[in-house]
Amino acid sequence: MAICVVGHSNPDTDSVTAAIALAALMNAQGKEAKACMQIAADNLNPESTTVLKRFGLAAPELLEDAGGKEIALVDFSDLAQGPANLDKAEIVAVVDHHKIGDITTNNPILFRAEPVGCTGTVLNKMFKDAGVAIPKDVAGGMLSAILSDTVNFKSPTCTEDDKVAVSELKGVAGVDDTDELFMEMLKAKSSVDGVPAKDLLFRDYKDFDMNGNKVGVGQLELATLDQVADIRADLMKAMEQVKADGRHSVLLMLTDVVKEGTDLVVLSDDPALIEKAFDSKLDGSSMWIPGMMSRKKQTVPNLQNAFGC
Amino acid sequence: MAICVVGHSNPDTDSVTAAIALAALMNAQGKEAKACMQIAADNLNPESTTVLKRFGLAAPELLEDAGGKEIALVDFSDLAQGPANLDKAEIVAVVDHHKIGDITTNNPILFRAEPVGCTGTVLNKMFKDAGVAIPKDVAGGMLSAILSDTVNFKSPTCTEDDKVAVSELKGVAGVDDTDELFMEMLKAKSSVDGVPAKDLLFRDYKDFDMNGNKVGVGQLELATLDQVADIRADLMKAMEQVKADGRHSVLLMLTDVVKEGTDLVVLSDDPALIEKAFDSKLDGSSMWIPGMMSRKKQTVPNLQNAFGC
Repeated sequence: MAICVVGHSNPDTDSVTAAIALAALMNAQGKEAKACMQIAADNLNPESTTVLKRFGLAAPELLEDAGGKEIALVDFSDLAQGPANLDKAEIVAVVDHHKIGDITTNNPILFRAEPVGCTGTVLNKMFKDAGVAIPKDVAGGMLSAILSDTVNFKSPTCTEDDKVAVSELKGVAGVDDTDELFMEMLKAKSSVDGVPAKDLLFRDYKDFDMNGNKVGVGQLELATLDQVADIRADLMKAMEQVKADGRHSVLLMLTDVVKEGTDLVVLSDDPALIEKAFDSKLDGSSMWIPGMMSRKKQTVPNLQNAFGC
Repeated sequence: MAICVVGHSNPDTDSVTAAIALAALMNAQGKEAKACMQIAADNLNPESTTVLKRFGLAAPELLEDAGGKEIALVDFSDLAQGPANLDKAEIVAVVDHHKIGDITTNNPILFRAEPVGCTGTVLNKMFKDAGVAIPKDVAGGMLSAILSDTVNFKSPTCTEDDKVAVSELKGVAGVDDTDELFMEMLKAKSSVDGVPAKDLLFRDYKDFDMNGNKVGVGQLELATLDQVADIRADLMKAMEQVKADGRHSVLLMLTDVVKEGTDLVVLSDDPALIEKAFDSKLDGSSMWIPGMMSRKKQTVPNLQNAFGC
């Protein structure tokens, strides 16, 4: 039975392309593996769909239930972000660049997480260490993921290792102009035309357990905040629906990639706690946080501190 | 404040030398770090003492309380095997070769575990990846750890990667005959002359949580079972004392390194469960399990299955 390589729920480009890349590496090393994701290809976000199409990569297949399967995780190590019955699966490998989650195993496995901007950067090292050449299409996916996760090197999560990986992968993938690739992704990703507000909220959304409180944080990366000016009321309505389902807070990061900051929309049982987390004051339902680009490195750690995690 | 690099409680040669090696690597990379261990040098096991002396390495310094410190873990990732207040420390790195434990972090860190025979093997790769030359004395420690953990390549945990690491490290360390080094360690390690039974039980001992039951497993590696023939009653008495302190079972693996098997001494609230775990029958208080060499890869997984973990 092939190992299923799968990223986190609501997969972003890194989760999708890292699953493809790790499956390719395992196959090259004689281990049968296939790339999977927790949604059907039809539901994949526009950025990832654009990337797959540009580099001619097949979408990972749907994996809904991990029970009884051999699973490799990419881009996460928290049970809550995995497919159903992940606790009844045999986890055989983890490759990640996030905080260390609550996954445990009964046997020694490969677990490689590094504090870099993207799982693709870690995977690029693993291909090199294993002496396995990266297929051109796979390199294109990994390259796109690094540009996406590091917001074209602007995110505070971006490291020297990510830049080295991009310079290596662009040659393999045959991409001369990475700025052009990034803008193509940004254009696809930030398009809101005709998309229902709830789909926008869930475009890149994660739930976290904060000291017993369920807190959801979505992020929309935009070329300009003007893109959402006319749909703010609809977004707030979608957040209210999601919050009503047992959540203490629902936050939506409207991140202006060009101005390098985030308009943080807040719906919370305790707005003062959220204000304290970011040392800022709400103006109506949102507050502008200059420099805030990364949910993982900025938003979530500040929330965890405020919630006393 | 320097990062404290520390191995598991009751440190073996891998925990001791891996702390030294990772601290050296971090220092070479401009991060201030020092090797630590959870016991004073006077209490270090005879094998590790012999290794430190042979290669002129200083013993890691005592670290009893991790609270508020920056800590790097080597050779374990379970909170229970760490120093006091590890949950109040900032864990900044993990390098290991065991099952994935319950450590979690609030921030992305380096977490590198591989299913190989020894942490020293993983560290050897990390030095190579970083382009840092391993100091001769540190290489001697890492080499010794791999020979010890893999029982001179005989353990089922031994992988091709471990053999490659040994062939590289012996050159750096200036060791021509690794069999001679292994026998020097075995001689030091298996000596029981004049050592109190309780100290023998704790020479390489770990507690595990098995589905809510506290189970202790010690291991004594011996050149021959004759070495303990006269002190079996004393060992049993020591096990009884340890078991009385809230444990469901206490097991002592008397491993004959030459015959490649283990006489498993069992003290348990449910001896039939332990017999079932190893598909064998107790003859008095112990049973001979041919081929059993590794607590991590053989004894603990079988126990976990039997306890329904």
